[in-house]
Amino acid sequence: MTRDLSKDNRFLSINTATVRAWDLKQAVEGIARAGIPALSVWRDKLQAVGVAEAARLIRRHRLAVSGLCRGGMFTGEGRGGLAKALEDNRRAVDEAASIAAACLVVVAGGLAPASRDIADARQIVREGLAELLPYARAAGVALAIEPLHPMYAADRACINTLAQANELCEALGEGIGVAVDVYHVWWDPNLANEIARAGKGRRILAFHICDWLVPTTDLLLDRGMMGDGVIDIRAIRALVEAAGYGGFCEVEIFSKNNWWKRPPEEALATAVERYRTVC
Amino acid sequence: MTRDLSKDNRFLSINTATVRAWDLKQAVEGIARAGIPALSVWRDKLQAVGVAEAARLIRRHRLAVSGLCRGGMFTGEGRGGLAKALEDNRRAVDEAASIAAACLVVVAGGLAPASRDIADARQIVREGLAELLPYARAAGVALAIEPLHPMYAADRACINTLAQANELCEALGEGIGVAVDVYHVWWDPNLANEIARAGKGRRILAFHICDWLVPTTDLLLDRGMMGDGVIDIRAIRALVEAAGYGGFCEVEIFSKNNWWKRPPEEALATAVERYRTVC
Repeated sequence: MTRDLSKDNRFLSINTATVRAWDLKQAVEGIARAGIPALSVWRDKLQAVGVAEAARLIRRHRLAVSGLCRGGMFTGEGRGGLAKALEDNRRAVDEAASIAAACLVVVAGGLAPASRDIADARQIVREGLAELLPYARAAGVALAIEPLHPMYAADRACINTLAQANELCEALGEGIGVAVDVYHVWWDPNLANEIARAGKGRRILAFHICDWLVPTTDLLLDRGMMGDGVIDIRAIRALVEAAGYGGFCEVEIFSKNNWWKRPPEEALATAVERYRTVC
Repeated sequence: MTRDLSKDNRFLSINTATVRAWDLKQAVEGIARAGIPALSVWRDKLQAVGVAEAARLIRRHRLAVSGLCRGGMFTGEGRGGLAKALEDNRRAVDEAASIAAACLVVVAGGLAPASRDIADARQIVREGLAELLPYARAAGVALAIEPLHPMYAADRACINTLAQANELCEALGEGIGVAVDVYHVWWDPNLANEIARAGKGRRILAFHICDWLVPTTDLLLDRGMMGDGVIDIRAIRALVEAAGYGGFCEVEIFSKNNWWKRPPEEALATAVERYRTVC
């Protein structure tokens, strides 16, 4: 039975990217004021206010944290830069622990500089995750691999399908799962099977929502509000919930030319309305 | 053994989209003048000059035709519009036969208007192909399903992986195969297996080349010249040739802000040089 979202905001979370004009203090206060019980935090916002102060703010407003964005990016300086990337990932794990985030979202990283070898990039990511995982386990922080849409394979993430993420999780064992973002996976012909597979391992750690606009005018910063695009969000939510997911629906919208130009309060109010009616 | 392309243009074909400023007569003459033995034709260019005249032009210049672009688009007016789409597809088959094209490239079509049901779009495409295929067989025209990059799933093609295309071919039988375009498939973690699978059925009917630029500034019209991006074209060519493909390498570059602004002669000369050195 798919959850009824129409009556309250119980399972709603807002990613700070959706209310980008706000610093973390403003975001926490604005989200709490809107009667939304959870948020997801980008690290730049966290670091700007300081981790300890952020944790205090979030606690004081009794917000849950559906995730910290983001760890990963293992390939940015190639295999030789993996140690440095891991150091930064360990800091991200510590930050996630400090704010009691449900998971650290991991975006793999794209091709290494000047490389055309995507198989090698995928191997670096595997090595990075294997090395990070014991540290994350010890800190009690779950790692959530977020497969990104294939259009980001070159420059952001070489993990592009849930199948790849599931395979990695199964190889790596406990403490690691997946973040399912409708924007990245809606097109995938194997989606139902791979969501079920992730669910069987109890590996669905986050569920992100927004919409795919037609036309899409920017590869990165033209995501739509739920209901304004072509993704059957409710159908995908039904799949993740049938697979056992009971966590938050996190609204993450990068929108350079629309929502980021409007007051964050308007994005929030619209997100609440759409969450209740179309998600 | 992968073919040596460095010494001549024997396996080079130019898609008319790459020399967009030219009409078909200019394209045929320009391509022949450049010592290139083949071209691939878009239907608008063909129709502008007339099919009979196009066939004469192409024969007179002794050019081979690596494909006609394009059939498909089965979903544009939903299931109710399938009969009309099929009528247009039969015309495309006739045109392909008239110019002795090696295949009719089929781009499936995206979501039906106002639909969010990608599974249904895929079903419409399957029905359309099943109905078109006997007509194409009778005309001696092979259909080449071109899986498009997932970023086109909404508005251009709901067939987004070689696995989907292979599955369709295997279900539909003789007379249908795939067009492998490096731009659409380079990110696919199953690429090697699916190319081998297509090859086993002798189903690789076309091989298209260009490059993925970083950054990519437009979802449709910012393809790069081979060598200017991140695709390991030679590695993918090795896969298709190991799978038995011995046909043309067709250069298809949509490039609003770069190549389309330059003289077609320059795009041609650069394509020849890159074909011989990086492909």
